[in-house]
Amino acid sequence: MLEEKICLSDVLVAKKRIEKYIANTPFVKSSWLSGLTGANIYMKLENVQVTGSFKYRGALNTLTWAKENQINKVFTASAGNHGLGVAEAAIHTEIEATVCVPQTASPLKKQKLQGYSISLIQHGDECDVTEAYARRLANEKKGFYVSPYNNKEVIAGAGTIALEMLEVIPTLTTIVVSVGGGGLASGIAIAAKAINPDIKVIGVVAANSPVMSTSVIAGRVVRAFQDKTIADGIAGNIEPESITFDLVKEMIDDWVTVDEQDIVSTVFEFLDNEGMLIEGAASATVAAISKKLLTFSPKEKVGIVVCGGNIARNDWREILVNHLVGAKKA
Amino acid sequence: MLEEKICLSDVLVAKKRIEKYIANTPFVKSSWLSGLTGANIYMKLENVQVTGSFKYRGALNTLTWAKENQINKVFTASAGNHGLGVAEAAIHTEIEATVCVPQTASPLKKQKLQGYSISLIQHGDECDVTEAYARRLANEKKGFYVSPYNNKEVIAGAGTIALEMLEVIPTLTTIVVSVGGGGLASGIAIAAKAINPDIKVIGVVAANSPVMSTSVIAGRVVRAFQDKTIADGIAGNIEPESITFDLVKEMIDDWVTVDEQDIVSTVFEFLDNEGMLIEGAASATVAAISKKLLTFSPKEKVGIVVCGGNIARNDWREILVNHLVGAKKA
Repeated sequence: MLEEKICLSDVLVAKKRIEKYIANTPFVKSSWLSGLTGANIYMKLENVQVTGSFKYRGALNTLTWAKENQINKVFTASAGNHGLGVAEAAIHTEIEATVCVPQTASPLKKQKLQGYSISLIQHGDECDVTEAYARRLANEKKGFYVSPYNNKEVIAGAGTIALEMLEVIPTLTTIVVSVGGGGLASGIAIAAKAINPDIKVIGVVAANSPVMSTSVIAGRVVRAFQDKTIADGIAGNIEPESITFDLVKEMIDDWVTVDEQDIVSTVFEFLDNEGMLIEGAASATVAAISKKLLTFSPKEKVGIVVCGGNIARNDWREILVNHLVGAKKA
Repeated sequence: MLEEKICLSDVLVAKKRIEKYIANTPFVKSSWLSGLTGANIYMKLENVQVTGSFKYRGALNTLTWAKENQINKVFTASAGNHGLGVAEAAIHTEIEATVCVPQTASPLKKQKLQGYSISLIQHGDECDVTEAYARRLANEKKGFYVSPYNNKEVIAGAGTIALEMLEVIPTLTTIVVSVGGGGLASGIAIAAKAINPDIKVIGVVAANSPVMSTSVIAGRVVRAFQDKTIADGIAGNIEPESITFDLVKEMIDDWVTVDEQDIVSTVFEFLDNEGMLIEGAASATVAAISKKLLTFSPKEKVGIVVCGGNIARNDWREILVNHLVGAKKA
């Protein structure tokens, strides 16, 4: 797949395309996580990105690229955040967008999508079924299919996060990032390691959907164990031919698997300590630190990607009631 | 007070001094508030600023100015956020800082201050008593007293917020901002109106401490009615000679007074809709919009300053339990 080789220059082109519209999100030290680990932990707050997730970066880069290539009709499939990103990007690029979501997508994400002037289609119970459907639609209607992760521009767009992190803390030693389809992790690793080959990139997967780490161990994309998880943004199987597989296999230095109960309780703990609601995929990354699944030496400067804040209202309310009523009794 | 005249160039100098260390915080559209009002409401998220509040901007500008003027010892008084800002700024500027806080300051703010290598002194029950004490200390120990609002560099530092807002949305028509001592409102009005004289700046005060609006009506700084408020960041009387009084009197186009119960319930509603915990001073500004105390025409582009996120744990937990247990019953 040499023709798909992505490098720093692609990320720099992406930055140029999108920087006027995206938020250069804060990259701030967490005294909570730093105190717990003894290291310096900085949080890249993509939960306050436009659309509430990092996905807007890749979507906007791809739709701008499409526009440059005279494409004016795109189709995508998404658990929600990528769909939101495409819907928002469609406004600025004036491209006609159709977003397919699995019927299991979080209500908040579906509700947010309905606010855009896009075609919204619910199809299938699992991400890969929805993906296949959107791809077929794109073929039939002669449009371009924008994969949530298996796309050069999506990956390059996500890579701009690493540029911003290293601009603020050039001496960063480690980046921790959650991995679903691997677009975010690939983009970040490409950019960060091009700037400093010594930077370690650690991938985080949800125990209830550890597709990429299982695939890396298997040496090929495999269908992994799947159970219900609050981390819907990193759940579901991935396309067998995804370009992210080789990228992730080559560049992710270490893997952490986070149990469901740790992801759930970290949603509360992050609110309690940092004052923000984050979605499961982001909570998994935070939990890798707060639950001490990773250890760091005292001088290390670690950046974690808090990738999104779009958690379903019912989910966080249930978590908060459980914790606060418990706390009151105690 | 012509010698204290502050103008756009002071704000631009401030920007140059501080931009490397502060977060250029997101300025993002709120679909919640836009939907409620029919206008376009954008939120400047200073709750994700370093130290959790806009106050870091003014503090860092002032301490950098002090350093440039061979001053190496500063004293301040603060309900907390300005103190935090000074403490954080002291790290980068290597200036010796003493922070005096009223005994009524929120526990979270005091706890955060204790994490810095500063001298922390608790004195007095009201902000003005604490201020007088810190000022005396500065005189006795031959240091510089950094007022939380009555200082040119503090005001200019706060003004950098307006530069960032107008960079993202140059066609902004109105800015809504909470007013305590008036440093934030002054700085923002100076910068915004220098760039576009037609921009309206609306000041928000807490009904339980409406000092500045009462003073503006009186034509001089007066001691106003004071009751307990969750908006501690904008509570308390102000120095009779504060340079902010004339600035605010001249430049604030309109005033809104927000009742305590609206400030409190908006803490919950902001979390429910935007996923973030904000402190009372910020909640007052949001409530001015969400409780429809202001009306806008459909095409207006309104920027609101979400000035800080440092709310005491007990306060938000109590608010959440009240709302969520109520919601569960319903």
